[in-house]
Amino acid sequence: MGVTAREIRLAARPSGWPTDENFAFADVEVPSPGAGELLVRNTFMSVDPYMRGRMNDVKSYTPPFELGKALEGGAVGEVVESGVDGVATGDLVLHNAGWRSHALVSQYTPLTPIEGVSPSRFLGALGMPALTAYVGLLDIARFTPGEAVFVSGAAGAVGSVAGQIARLKGASRVIGSAGSAEKVAHLTDDLGFDAAFNYRDGDVGELLAQAAPDGIDVYFDNVGGDHLQAAIDALRTNGRVAVCGSISMYNEKQPPPGPRNLHLLVGKRLTLRGFIILDHYDRFGAMAEEVGQWLANGELVAEETVVDGLDNAPAAFVGMLRGENTGKMVVRL
Amino acid sequence: MGVTAREIRLAARPSGWPTDENFAFADVEVPSPGAGELLVRNTFMSVDPYMRGRMNDVKSYTPPFELGKALEGGAVGEVVESGVDGVATGDLVLHNAGWRSHALVSQYTPLTPIEGVSPSRFLGALGMPALTAYVGLLDIARFTPGEAVFVSGAAGAVGSVAGQIARLKGASRVIGSAGSAEKVAHLTDDLGFDAAFNYRDGDVGELLAQAAPDGIDVYFDNVGGDHLQAAIDALRTNGRVAVCGSISMYNEKQPPPGPRNLHLLVGKRLTLRGFIILDHYDRFGAMAEEVGQWLANGELVAEETVVDGLDNAPAAFVGMLRGENTGKMVVRL
Repeated sequence: MGVTAREIRLAARPSGWPTDENFAFADVEVPSPGAGELLVRNTFMSVDPYMRGRMNDVKSYTPPFELGKALEGGAVGEVVESGVDGVATGDLVLHNAGWRSHALVSQYTPLTPIEGVSPSRFLGALGMPALTAYVGLLDIARFTPGEAVFVSGAAGAVGSVAGQIARLKGASRVIGSAGSAEKVAHLTDDLGFDAAFNYRDGDVGELLAQAAPDGIDVYFDNVGGDHLQAAIDALRTNGRVAVCGSISMYNEKQPPPGPRNLHLLVGKRLTLRGFIILDHYDRFGAMAEEVGQWLANGELVAEETVVDGLDNAPAAFVGMLRGENTGKMVVRL
Repeated sequence: MGVTAREIRLAARPSGWPTDENFAFADVEVPSPGAGELLVRNTFMSVDPYMRGRMNDVKSYTPPFELGKALEGGAVGEVVESGVDGVATGDLVLHNAGWRSHALVSQYTPLTPIEGVSPSRFLGALGMPALTAYVGLLDIARFTPGEAVFVSGAAGAVGSVAGQIARLKGASRVIGSAGSAEKVAHLTDDLGFDAAFNYRDGDVGELLAQAAPDGIDVYFDNVGGDHLQAAIDALRTNGRVAVCGSISMYNEKQPPPGPRNLHLLVGKRLTLRGFIILDHYDRFGAMAEEVGQWLANGELVAEETVVDGLDNAPAAFVGMLRGENTGKMVVRL
């Protein structure tokens, strides 16, 4: 049977912020699935900060996107034609062939729909961002109950879950930073953060010192730059940093200087540890069980920003990079 | 009985490099020891980089030296009068009341003299610097056989032992940096480093890339600054950094910017961990057993620079900060 699919390709590598010229739309014929393959109609696709890094021609933990080829990324879809025993038409799967209306996939995760929960949640509050929050806080930063936690990018898909897991696991204090007064109010009013600040309001070091006068034990770093320097100043002895991302640097042509206070790592016995969530999928089950329960009973709030239509995916992507979303940004196809 | 002791005091806090004006000499009466105390005649005292930090009026892992009071630091001495059962006149002890001819001490480590090994070794190849090297490499950076190791400040008391422990424990490659051609030759010719470079010869990143074309797994950081940035570039996936010191920054009035490449912590899954050797004295026995054996059979080479006379201790200290020593710098009293 097969189908005609619409896809979004990388037309040119961006220098700085991506623009329309970096994307191209194309219609392609997708054949019926062979053995072991599924033909999937995507219902939701994800836009994530790491995709900006893959647009550069730089070796990283994932290879760069290829020029003239379709972009990739997390997506949820319904099986249209199955070449796999045990997978039927209409089944729901999670896979990495986003940025297109239909895809032929051989690597996928079968999903069990949850009553009253949108399938888009598997791209956010029950997906990779939540796993990133869970692993970063508990395994990388080794958070223990009673500790004070600071999360940057706290209104984002990862940060909002990280801060709430800290709260639900018994943090003494949870502090978040975000880029607007609305997001800051959302953190304290809706997500249960003890304190939050808008990093555009002044010196991040001073803002953090006011929000965490007794210091912090764990910093969940989504942004790097001046936030990392401020956190190192605020960390107490034996503090840990989970280095998850450096969104502040993704669109810089020349990386800004790093923190001036790394020498404090010695006296305070601090640990900075970077991680990539792809290494930690063995924790998916534990995460889904705990976070799914909190989501179901309303203890964990996860907003999402839904943009409609594949044609609007590039704008959704750039908007996410500029911080226009609250919670996980997804595109409904 | 008691004794008249000569001591060196902090006369003024240095700004930048210490000068003669920062030190004052004084003669003081030291009484006979009370119960639990020892009156010790110091035979060797240590000068170490961390002492420069204690001269600033800044809270750190050890309190600042007090103005007008005698400086402190590691020393080896012979008991002159004992107020402790089981400690006799002539016994050898390690303690922290250096910078003076005699001291009354209540905290000390009894030492067993080693045939043919100078007691000064307990300040260097069998002392705190060796313990720092041992713990930093094995416990903090979790070195395992077959890995490539880069050590900065590799001709110093800590670095020279760290590189040799790596070699003796089966490193695939040991690379060192130092501040002169003589030291570089010493590393490869005498200490068994596979490669070494003079960091004054050009860009540290390029020099390291030439010395370690296949990258490194462990970086033992004694200097910070551009060395740390170069090491982060060279580290392979899952690499670890033991952050031991930042000698390059101790005399800077304004700390220089940190590494521009900390975002690589994420993709390479790197860990940076600072430590203070005071937390790790439980490892002294294991270190002394292994390193003492290597030192006795000549597998581990540990040079020391001995300066004679208490009056020359300030000059020895500044010389050490300027890198004029090879191996451990001690003062013989």
